[in-house]
Amino acid sequence: MLRCLEIADAQGKRENGGRGLTVEHEELLAKLLVRNESKIVLIVLDGLGGMQTSGVSTELHAAASPHLDGLARDGSSGLATIVRPGITPGSGAGHLSLFGYDPLQYELGRGALSAAGIGFELKPGDIAARVNFCTLDERGVIVDRRAGRIPTETNKKLCKKILEEADLGEGVEIFLETEREHRALLVLRGEGLAPAVADTDPQIEGVVPFEPQGTSANGDVTAALLKKLLTQVRTVLAGEAANFILLRGLDTHRELPAFGERYGLRPAAIAGYPMYIGIARLLGMDVFGPKSSWTEEVDELEKAWEAHDFFYIHQKRTDSAGEDGDFDGKVNAIEEVDATIPRILELGPDVICVTGDHATPSQLMQHSWHPVPFLLWGERVGVDHLKVFSEESARGGGLGWVKGTDLMPLMLAAAARLLKYGA
Amino acid sequence: MLRCLEIADAQGKRENGGRGLTVEHEELLAKLLVRNESKIVLIVLDGLGGMQTSGVSTELHAAASPHLDGLARDGSSGLATIVRPGITPGSGAGHLSLFGYDPLQYELGRGALSAAGIGFELKPGDIAARVNFCTLDERGVIVDRRAGRIPTETNKKLCKKILEEADLGEGVEIFLETEREHRALLVLRGEGLAPAVADTDPQIEGVVPFEPQGTSANGDVTAALLKKLLTQVRTVLAGEAANFILLRGLDTHRELPAFGERYGLRPAAIAGYPMYIGIARLLGMDVFGPKSSWTEEVDELEKAWEAHDFFYIHQKRTDSAGEDGDFDGKVNAIEEVDATIPRILELGPDVICVTGDHATPSQLMQHSWHPVPFLLWGERVGVDHLKVFSEESARGGGLGWVKGTDLMPLMLAAAARLLKYGA
Repeated sequence: MLRCLEIADAQGKRENGGRGLTVEHEELLAKLLVRNESKIVLIVLDGLGGMQTSGVSTELHAAASPHLDGLARDGSSGLATIVRPGITPGSGAGHLSLFGYDPLQYELGRGALSAAGIGFELKPGDIAARVNFCTLDERGVIVDRRAGRIPTETNKKLCKKILEEADLGEGVEIFLETEREHRALLVLRGEGLAPAVADTDPQIEGVVPFEPQGTSANGDVTAALLKKLLTQVRTVLAGEAANFILLRGLDTHRELPAFGERYGLRPAAIAGYPMYIGIARLLGMDVFGPKSSWTEEVDELEKAWEAHDFFYIHQKRTDSAGEDGDFDGKVNAIEEVDATIPRILELGPDVICVTGDHATPSQLMQHSWHPVPFLLWGERVGVDHLKVFSEESARGGGLGWVKGTDLMPLMLAAAARLLKYGA
Repeated sequence: MLRCLEIADAQGKRENGGRGLTVEHEELLAKLLVRNESKIVLIVLDGLGGMQTSGVSTELHAAASPHLDGLARDGSSGLATIVRPGITPGSGAGHLSLFGYDPLQYELGRGALSAAGIGFELKPGDIAARVNFCTLDERGVIVDRRAGRIPTETNKKLCKKILEEADLGEGVEIFLETEREHRALLVLRGEGLAPAVADTDPQIEGVVPFEPQGTSANGDVTAALLKKLLTQVRTVLAGEAANFILLRGLDTHRELPAFGERYGLRPAAIAGYPMYIGIARLLGMDVFGPKSSWTEEVDELEKAWEAHDFFYIHQKRTDSAGEDGDFDGKVNAIEEVDATIPRILELGPDVICVTGDHATPSQLMQHSWHPVPFLLWGERVGVDHLKVFSEESARGGGLGWVKGTDLMPLMLAAAARLLKYGA
């Protein structure tokens, strides 16, 4: 049985504005935190949640996942509302919620996530945007939002070419860093910039890209600079297969309270995609990745085991398959995780939580607002009557319906890392 | 499949005081809103919620409602807490919650609702009260709180008689407008008035009415004026069958953010009773009514279909029957709605939500705090395993337990009218 060993320092300072309940909750946790030797594994199957439709079950229901079912049987299940009922979480918002940071309080643009993902250190005042190389036809209409997923090498060559030619005048520095395939990161550095600029990526093909437009007066200067830059890019890339760029998720440098300090944990993040590595890095976790497969991630988990006590391990393929409308692919991605549960159990974790950062039903081919099932396993959790892990069974689970931000307190409680509140 | 067509203007200004989460939620919705061609129908069966007792099911459970069951089977169900657990909603509060206005933030007195219901335009500073003509015996004890439900014509005659005689001195104008049967609206207009006055209606018979009493110092002047007015009324009505009036729900003019602007919708409200028309009018909906029957309301729905995209349609009889302790009457009122579901489906709605604004169990003969079942139907909702629409089955429904104010986001999400949140 786990015992509380040491009372953590109450964290005095919190940078979280005036938002009632969340601050209360954060202060409460800080007060109750204790450290011990327990180890917690949080397995995130991206976009795990599904949507049952007439004649079609959810992917989780359909998966042959005896080991996840075993964890559900020996633990308890529930359903999590990641942001708010009816609100579809983006990946950043979904993960922040799972890590116990209310995504309405801590906002993260995709630009900042991309920057963190490739290890680009944003400085206060920098503006970062996610870049897609794309293909326009002769009228300027988008015919391929991903320019045929150009090779990473082509991407690097085009970034270099743009940087050689582009010029925004004195005082504005431009960075353009290859991420992977058609994706890159754009950063502007200078005085008076602001991220209040709408995406130029219309998210669909067959239309022309939007012009950069300030979403409030303080974004107007940045919008004008981006407009100038995009005109130059159009000239530089003329004749290339990838002949333009689309911008989205403009954001700036943000300080997030470090996860390790917040919870008295030594966290390790293991993921296959830069963005998830990016979120973890913004939270100050030790990051391992990008890894090229789930199995490789589990290998890394074994290596990181001794030096850490909280492990976030991320399966991306569930979400990618859901977005492709590939029901079987999503089932397969769940089964891939399932098959490695025995390896994870062999490490001797005290607590395992399995969940998703949002739903990605393959019928909808996109993120959705549907609640996400979770299971919590550990000797202090107790068992409910459920025999399988699925959306439908989780509805009657022993942990009920909770908010995404409730999962961290539940994991900590299961790990005997929270004192009782009040006398 | 529904697609987002146009990004709505972010609504910059919100008049919503300092209540953290609610404001956040409102700002969030404003940011994520998109417009499309979808149509949403919200069917409110007033006081729908029931209370199962030993040997007695709920009215909804007892009703033969194959079409509502069909919507539940092809959609998902849940339970809504309209205000807070244990808090019994009044009709105004219940409806505000369903429309996504937290009733703890947006308060509405019955007086203001009555005024809106009969189209009386309250001005800032006006005091409005709901009036019941009643019958007192010779000792001044209430023997009938509704004066035998006097005909509307008698009501008009008595209002006229009171207005001819009553006088509150220079600078205070008195309005007394017939609503229906024993109900009327009283409005005082003048300087320095305040609605901080308790009801004079004791809500029971066999006692004397309360004297007007300020609930805070700033209501004292108004209370004294009302006391003077009631003394005059007692003299004027001496010898009439309805020989006194009871006041409740004192309120003043309130500005509510317009529903249509808030959600990017063109709302139509169709109801049979002035108060519900009143709520809708305060929210700036296009109102159709009062209609004299549910069938006539559905006729109106058909007529309003083309020009609107959100339809609030209200069945009052469920609540009236519940308050009369008439179990079978409430069952019948549910079945009346059920029979018209095919007509509503024929219009081709994208989303249907069926719920109540509060519970009115016929065993209690009054509004109650019990959670209210709801169903959500639409192609992006998904199905849970439920085959019927009832309180008991909704407990295990796919949409779980939500707040009343979560229903609007859920309807909007089901109609593909909300973007995802965050990168």
